[in-house]
Amino acid sequence: MARGGRYTAAMDWLDQIKWDAQGLVPVIAQEVGSGDLLMFAFMNREALARTVELGEAVYYSRSRQRLWRKGEASGHIQRVHEVRMDCDNDAVLLKVEQLGATPGIACHTGRHSCFFQRLESDGWKSVDPVLKDPQSIYK
Amino acid sequence: MARGGRYTAAMDWLDQIKWDAQGLVPVIAQEVGSGDLLMFAFMNREALARTVELGEAVYYSRSRQRLWRKGEASGHIQRVHEVRMDCDNDAVLLKVEQLGATPGIACHTGRHSCFFQRLESDGWKSVDPVLKDPQSIYK
Repeated sequence: MARGGRYTAAMDWLDQIKWDAQGLVPVIAQEVGSGDLLMFAFMNREALARTVELGEAVYYSRSRQRLWRKGEASGHIQRVHEVRMDCDNDAVLLKVEQLGATPGIACHTGRHSCFFQRLESDGWKSVDPVLKDPQSIYK
Repeated sequence: MARGGRYTAAMDWLDQIKWDAQGLVPVIAQEVGSGDLLMFAFMNREALARTVELGEAVYYSRSRQRLWRKGEASGHIQRVHEVRMDCDNDAVLLKVEQLGATPGIACHTGRHSCFFQRLESDGWKSVDPVLKDPQSIYK
């Protein structure tokens, strides 16, 4: 992965992103290897700069209005292998290694992926197993 | 895939989504089989209802402020195999088959995926090939 951080020339690459009215960009985390989609969140400019500097995902929590280093409470850190941007420059894709458990746990519910609800003919169903009790993750 | 459309009981499943202030939800399209992330877009309630009814992706274009049936101009239709929702009920994942070309072309630039720009030490680089000239796609 490109680790530029504060040393990348004038942070020009951050200026190329079309930040929304709140200064955020949507970010998708996909697991390297499996290709599984792990989670969807937002980053502000500082979060993305920190992500690249650290090589670990740092998101912006809209509810808490602060940077949120993924795994800071759970230990479920995301090591970033690759950062991509879409054709409109308004969405970011992180290819990550989900650390802290095997298989990786990206979701606060203790599941592998946050996308565990599947639409069935009678509505949304939780179809993926809880790998670890959230109470033992966040203690 | 669950095809409910107007027949799904009272469309309750649509009410469970946390639509944003503009009545939209972010949607990620992932290719079935390869696991490749194809694109990121938005849907409003009607777009998602239509998507499930048709079994083909229908997005909401924020710039054109109208429903946009993927492939309506290009023929690059997305057949929907599965619809998922995340733990916060505020993001949707479609598992799709990208029709109309082999390999599938999801991006208006003629590339497989919209996420073709990779962050390198000297900035964003287009790293994926154009599979078909956009001028011959949109004619």
